[in-house]
Amino acid sequence: MNRPTLKDIATRAGVSVSTVSYALNDESTLPLAVNTKVRIRAIARELGYVPNSVARSLQSRSSQTIGVLLNKPLTTPRYAEIAQGLNEGLAARGFHLALLGGESAARCVDDARGGRLDGLVFIGHDDQEVPGDLATQVTEHHIPFVTLDCGPATSPGSWSSVDFDYATGVEQVLEHLADQGVTRIVHVRPDVTSRADRTRVAAVETTTVVRGMELRTIATGMTDELLARVDGQPSESAEYTSGMANRLDAGLAWLDGASAATTALVCSWGSDVEAVYHWAAERDGRLRVAALAGGALDPRFWRGLTYSRLPLHEAGIACAGLIIDAHTKRASPTRRALAPSLDIGDAPHQRRRN
Amino acid sequence: MNRPTLKDIATRAGVSVSTVSYALNDESTLPLAVNTKVRIRAIARELGYVPNSVARSLQSRSSQTIGVLLNKPLTTPRYAEIAQGLNEGLAARGFHLALLGGESAARCVDDARGGRLDGLVFIGHDDQEVPGDLATQVTEHHIPFVTLDCGPATSPGSWSSVDFDYATGVEQVLEHLADQGVTRIVHVRPDVTSRADRTRVAAVETTTVVRGMELRTIATGMTDELLARVDGQPSESAEYTSGMANRLDAGLAWLDGASAATTALVCSWGSDVEAVYHWAAERDGRLRVAALAGGALDPRFWRGLTYSRLPLHEAGIACAGLIIDAHTKRASPTRRALAPSLDIGDAPHQRRRN
Repeated sequence: MNRPTLKDIATRAGVSVSTVSYALNDESTLPLAVNTKVRIRAIARELGYVPNSVARSLQSRSSQTIGVLLNKPLTTPRYAEIAQGLNEGLAARGFHLALLGGESAARCVDDARGGRLDGLVFIGHDDQEVPGDLATQVTEHHIPFVTLDCGPATSPGSWSSVDFDYATGVEQVLEHLADQGVTRIVHVRPDVTSRADRTRVAAVETTTVVRGMELRTIATGMTDELLARVDGQPSESAEYTSGMANRLDAGLAWLDGASAATTALVCSWGSDVEAVYHWAAERDGRLRVAALAGGALDPRFWRGLTYSRLPLHEAGIACAGLIIDAHTKRASPTRRALAPSLDIGDAPHQRRRN
Repeated sequence: MNRPTLKDIATRAGVSVSTVSYALNDESTLPLAVNTKVRIRAIARELGYVPNSVARSLQSRSSQTIGVLLNKPLTTPRYAEIAQGLNEGLAARGFHLALLGGESAARCVDDARGGRLDGLVFIGHDDQEVPGDLATQVTEHHIPFVTLDCGPATSPGSWSSVDFDYATGVEQVLEHLADQGVTRIVHVRPDVTSRADRTRVAAVETTTVVRGMELRTIATGMTDELLARVDGQPSESAEYTSGMANRLDAGLAWLDGASAATTALVCSWGSDVEAVYHWAAERDGRLRVAALAGGALDPRFWRGLTYSRLPLHEAGIACAGLIIDAHTKRASPTRRALAPSLDIGDAPHQRRRN
């Protein structure tokens, strides 16, 4: 690369290498004639000198790079949005984001111990636990560490965490529906055992009681076991998807035109919304549809949808701030809970039939 | 972090620091009793020794990290899919991917010159040019550099490039439609001036002549100027989206039931497909819809859609291989052109009306 060295600058300036080093170091307290400093810096610029940032890393024990562990591909929209926020937050403070994923916990921890990474951020999903070996090793080796969406229970006070306040999201949606005259909530929900899902179920039960709404439940047929299969092989979801309409038909056989206008189908999972929305549009346009959690749906295509949008981008930015503070200031662990925002898609719909 | 040093291992083993260094270095050719080596390595493991990878970087002049310049957020699905492929390709060879975006060209080049990054990958879009200052600086400083989807013209032979073979994608789609009995192509296309779009227009014209199909064109109203506005402010696209149905209505006023069965609406842009597909489904279910370029549409929701799928993931992997070769072997620049694949969505559709 033919990078000019301190020696090249010293030769050109007719001074010692140490003088060049002092002149280029902003933090040097050594007195140096202002003229000399200005002249040496001009020569450095002219020669295209760049300080060796690896050498600087060795000295400062900082690579200015944070490793981010994603356990799902970036093509999963929620992960892309989180990673984007993280990257913006890190870049704003001069840090790089290194994407991890395939690596073992041991390899990531080695990279952090060896100085290649200044810290690790683990992106979970609906209260997913931090893998046990990773949790043990980051604690043992005092690696700066932050978790996102792993649930408060998995942050044992030794690292910072960012979580979503799923209960508030549920309240926002149901309060809005009640205000719109909805008197019956049909909760379309999976049979999975995550804490986030239990939180949503409890919040739906509480809020419907508080607002005096009737509550019915339709199980989508998604279980922990099926979820694991679908994650490994997306085609496994075909039966699930095609079964959704039948379950809705069976679960809502009693629904007549009069009650449709005051009934809302509320989906626990953002990923069920597309199927439920299409079903409702075919069945009775007056049925309302709402989603309790999810990333970004394009509002142009979801007229009238009530949507609890997770602050994914904001969560990424929050993680960036916490991990940099953990690295640079050895800041004490903190917990942040971010509330979703309520979106109501009411832009013109592509399908003119609606 | 209390990282054990070579000295700690030497003290415990009762040997010199040099002996420890030789014993832990796989590439050392110094003869050392096998017993000694095994014993020292066991102690290193026991103490939890990790080689200081920053010091190793300084020695090898390699950070094992590649910077990837994305000029759109990761939430753009095509960028997420490319980044995912890149990350897998880099991880498979022990490299990290550092996401860049906000940084100036000068900053990225400085990071590469200073040893913090081993090379740069620039992700373009439809023959987007490499920014002039970046092109100048990577050439001037011999930075390992690879471009994706910037068009053959922007690779002046000083770096490797990966591009998409858009013309072959067009041929695949039109050949398939002709084989299915389609005799009239309505090309729904933007008024933008990118090389990729000119390539597609030329390939549509040639292939329809070769296959004896009639060709009509409907302009979507998207221009370079509008595109720049929409990129900055997505809400700017509302009028564009709502205008699409009117343009299709006006452009296809002559269409009757008999001709619908042998007509295909072929979209130059993947992002127009959703609107065109819904329009066609409302208007006449026998109209075929095809898309000439794009990322991944979920086939469950696009029954009968003919789709030229860009090999985005594969392109990411190809870039990873080229940039690592440029860094490690100083390999000569090469150009790769990847052909799209033909997807025909015919899985059961969510909307039972079809």
